[in-house]
Amino acid sequence: MSHYPLEDVRSTESAEPWLTVGRHCFRSRLIVGIEQYDSIPLIRQVLEASDADIFITTVDPDGMRSSLLLSDLADEVPLEKYTWVGTTSFARSADGALRTVDILRRTCAIEIIKLDVRTQDNRPQNQQTIKVAEQLLADGLTVLPFILPDPRDARRLEEAGCAAIRVMASPVGSGLGITDAPALRQIIEQCQVPVIIEGGLGTAHHVSLAMELGAAAVLVNTALASARHPALMAAAMKHAAAAGRLAHQSEPALCVA
Amino acid sequence: MSHYPLEDVRSTESAEPWLTVGRHCFRSRLIVGIEQYDSIPLIRQVLEASDADIFITTVDPDGMRSSLLLSDLADEVPLEKYTWVGTTSFARSADGALRTVDILRRTCAIEIIKLDVRTQDNRPQNQQTIKVAEQLLADGLTVLPFILPDPRDARRLEEAGCAAIRVMASPVGSGLGITDAPALRQIIEQCQVPVIIEGGLGTAHHVSLAMELGAAAVLVNTALASARHPALMAAAMKHAAAAGRLAHQSEPALCVA
Repeated sequence: MSHYPLEDVRSTESAEPWLTVGRHCFRSRLIVGIEQYDSIPLIRQVLEASDADIFITTVDPDGMRSSLLLSDLADEVPLEKYTWVGTTSFARSADGALRTVDILRRTCAIEIIKLDVRTQDNRPQNQQTIKVAEQLLADGLTVLPFILPDPRDARRLEEAGCAAIRVMASPVGSGLGITDAPALRQIIEQCQVPVIIEGGLGTAHHVSLAMELGAAAVLVNTALASARHPALMAAAMKHAAAAGRLAHQSEPALCVA
Repeated sequence: MSHYPLEDVRSTESAEPWLTVGRHCFRSRLIVGIEQYDSIPLIRQVLEASDADIFITTVDPDGMRSSLLLSDLADEVPLEKYTWVGTTSFARSADGALRTVDILRRTCAIEIIKLDVRTQDNRPQNQQTIKVAEQLLADGLTVLPFILPDPRDARRLEEAGCAAIRVMASPVGSGLGITDAPALRQIIEQCQVPVIIEGGLGTAHHVSLAMELGAAAVLVNTALASARHPALMAAAMKHAAAAGRLAHQSEPALCVA
């Protein structure tokens, strides 16, 4: 039991960057996807309630469907407040991922890539992800790859030079929460770079647990978009991330996942 | 998916009272026990970080051991900020509980009683709790009884006139979290009075889940006192309670316990 100066509690609650890429500081521990909304005012509300500082954009390399009409967004959302990250999550092959990156780079000058190489059933494909990551890193991009929780693959991606590793909690959109806490914990403990937990985080206590395990950040998407009031769930997730992080730092003696 | 005015997100995050007893408003959704600390500055930190507005005090009816030296506390803790609630949690029989209430009433003029009638193994004894509650209610006290999650016993206590019902998540001090979510949910849905979940809430995601189930408030104690940095865990629990409450109000479609 220790006296922990209250000023330190407060500064722990405030926002130290957990990742710095060039001039971009990632401070918020909560990353939100926004490609499932068709209302721009709602996107603005969700971004504001979540306190996110990353803006994710994407394009479908085949249908050329864009995640948002950026020209419309600019009227509602103060886009200069965000670090822009491109995602390949619409792609369903290594080739599709590479083509997506190429489009995002040419059209939006995006240099930070949330790399998803998913199979037809929408799960990350670790080996192809590693291959594509190596290629993008060689091209000078900052790469945030998404993998199934395999500690060896996480190590390979870290050694290849990825800025952070994104690890799946459970299938994207499933809401099943964290199904293999020991694997996530092992990856977090072995990695020198930040580990982001995402996929299947369906509600607040999943996010809290992810941060209790020591994740640097979490990414949520369907949990917000499918709630009746997405902005309330966004605010919930913001508090849940703070709760889990503080609990982890408190060095609990009781319980743990 | 609905547009929820951001002003409403903010007011949801702020503190409407969830229970009013005479001139006392219970606003904070997080109640913390403080009888496990031997340092008064640490108690002050924990209370401040938790943002609690209830102050729980007790006495051992046999050893006459008091939870705190109130005279010492008054120098460090702004006691006028809190609603004082007496607890019988040191008692291990119905008779001990009644004697505790008598002492608290005579020495501190306490009118709101956190009623615990526990067995030797420290679990709530529902039938004796109901009997003692009826007696205290007849004496004009405000009673907050603690029971195992039995929906019929919860109904009896509500019908008897208890101001709120406290229901056990898992054994006190165990850190096992919520072991019977369906029973808790049933009690919450049937009760007109607020339901407080407590016992075994060992870390932030337990508290978040309790609030997601629809609890009005949670009570934590050992989780904070046993952490290396109790004030950080107190701050964690404050955010976890807010997270769970907001998630509940967002009407999630995905997942649920």
